[in-house]
Amino acid sequence: MKIKETSEFSLIHSLTKKIRAAGSGSVLVGIGDDAAAFRMGNGKNLLITCDMLVEGRHFLRDKITPRQLGCKALAVSLSDIAAMGGVPRFAVVSAGWTPELEVEYAQEVYRGMGELADEFQVSIIGGDTVSAPQVILDVAVIGEMDGAPVTRAGAKPGDAIAVTGSLGASAAGLALLREEEAAANLSEKARQALLRAHLEPYPRVKEAGMLLKYGPPSAMIDISDGLAGDLYHICESSGVGALLEVSRLPVSESVKQAAATLGSSFLDWVLYGGEDYELLMTIPPGCVAGVKKAVEMLGTNLSVIGKVLHKREGIKILSKKGAAFELEPRGFDHFAAFK
Amino acid sequence: MKIKETSEFSLIHSLTKKIRAAGSGSVLVGIGDDAAAFRMGNGKNLLITCDMLVEGRHFLRDKITPRQLGCKALAVSLSDIAAMGGVPRFAVVSAGWTPELEVEYAQEVYRGMGELADEFQVSIIGGDTVSAPQVILDVAVIGEMDGAPVTRAGAKPGDAIAVTGSLGASAAGLALLREEEAAANLSEKARQALLRAHLEPYPRVKEAGMLLKYGPPSAMIDISDGLAGDLYHICESSGVGALLEVSRLPVSESVKQAAATLGSSFLDWVLYGGEDYELLMTIPPGCVAGVKKAVEMLGTNLSVIGKVLHKREGIKILSKKGAAFELEPRGFDHFAAFK
Repeated sequence: MKIKETSEFSLIHSLTKKIRAAGSGSVLVGIGDDAAAFRMGNGKNLLITCDMLVEGRHFLRDKITPRQLGCKALAVSLSDIAAMGGVPRFAVVSAGWTPELEVEYAQEVYRGMGELADEFQVSIIGGDTVSAPQVILDVAVIGEMDGAPVTRAGAKPGDAIAVTGSLGASAAGLALLREEEAAANLSEKARQALLRAHLEPYPRVKEAGMLLKYGPPSAMIDISDGLAGDLYHICESSGVGALLEVSRLPVSESVKQAAATLGSSFLDWVLYGGEDYELLMTIPPGCVAGVKKAVEMLGTNLSVIGKVLHKREGIKILSKKGAAFELEPRGFDHFAAFK
Repeated sequence: MKIKETSEFSLIHSLTKKIRAAGSGSVLVGIGDDAAAFRMGNGKNLLITCDMLVEGRHFLRDKITPRQLGCKALAVSLSDIAAMGGVPRFAVVSAGWTPELEVEYAQEVYRGMGELADEFQVSIIGGDTVSAPQVILDVAVIGEMDGAPVTRAGAKPGDAIAVTGSLGASAAGLALLREEEAAANLSEKARQALLRAHLEPYPRVKEAGMLLKYGPPSAMIDISDGLAGDLYHICESSGVGALLEVSRLPVSESVKQAAATLGSSFLDWVLYGGEDYELLMTIPPGCVAGVKKAVEMLGTNLSVIGKVLHKREGIKILSKKGAAFELEPRGFDHFAAFK
């Protein structure tokens, strides 16, 4: 079977099934969550995650500035650490550069990465620099936390499903990059906001700190595959069902305007678009008010968008008119998207 | 200036000079050594390193089996941890696969990686899997150690310069891959040994453990750029000079045979070939005998090949006939090699 005939998740499973069994005693979370976690023996737990961006697959050099690219390459890994409830501390960067590239381009990538690292007090402490046929960035981030990592596996029936910020803006931004002519009909302000959401995702690290302090959530994931796909990851890991309510999904006016302008469905972007890098979580009912208040002290909305059901009840979405549908289990398959 | 007009080391310097200044308080070793190190606060120090291998740049798919590739991708990072004196514990793997690749290829890569990981009790705990135009493997390894990491910066005049194993075999293996016809004149045993040295480097993790216990060395590095280049790294970081003796360099009969067969200079391979992944170290004079005995208990030779001089004395090599030459400061520039 060829790589293109498999899915990202079944490939990962087939590659790592033997490794999963081997995990050592100090490993708290192995392959298959947003980040791995291991015990340090002093009450602290460390987290580690890595994300690779390949030119032509994850970005086009003429659509993203090098500063934005550096920023995004780090942001996606910071987001994974946040999704476990951790505080990012250190990063190492493997970079592949094409021989014909201007050195200034690489410097701008590092400038973008350095700015975001400074903002979150993350130290870039090492890496590797190689020659490659296209630009490649792989950032590994180490985070730490005192308590237990928040995995995808703790959701319980009755928990509220909540999400930070708003959804669909990154997918809208990607659509605008692909259809530049149509995009010209959109207000400049909306266009800028959506492009920024796609090109400069902002990891919810501070929000994760508040969530841990005033929660913690029973399960959490960052939205990289789209709300539907990532909700499925939580439901599968936790052995639960879920009900989402369309009327409660946080969607900005800019996203709605862009969908209208491009003749697209904003709900499609929200559910299946991916790369929002918002935190999707489940919260025990008694904690919802406190958690919401804490996150909103940071100026970030926290929206309750549904609730966790028993597994036998399935994974559903309630339309604005009150009809319940099975939620399609597809997510944005980063792997399939470029086959 | 274009990437191809710079060197690996000046590029790294220009990208990271701002980052170097920013290092946080718990960072013990930042960018510029074999691995970075930071304090965990419980007396333990953690190490992290990453190495990226890109098809067509670092390997050719028809010259290395996928099992060997997986093994090598992990080995080079384990070697970096060993070079700091650490014990490797965890790894995360970012992998790029081409859509047309057979899934079995990727599985074999993971099998090779898994076998080496098991041998050194390293847990592969996470990673990223993406689609790419060629096979890409980036492995980040976390190691730990109780004491201070052994950097490149501690060599003192009077210290002995020593190296594990033997040198030049990987470069000889690479030459054999490039000149298959000439290689046919070599004995099968020698050919196999040299190819294995290049395709399946074995990290000196156990030796590093002994070195720390019975030493520690005053400075250490793993030989990835060639003896000359890596000795220069130690001399520059430590502010010292050095004298190597050709007659004391450990070179196997297979390497000498291959050089004779291919009409190459084995000394060139030893000094400038790279990818030996042996440990090059400096040892205070009083410790040499004990360290040598300890390492040799593992069945690995430790050869004293020269001594550390004052900086003003330069970096020299003594020929078999007793003439001293300035050692050329070039190393195997992985970056320039494929321009």
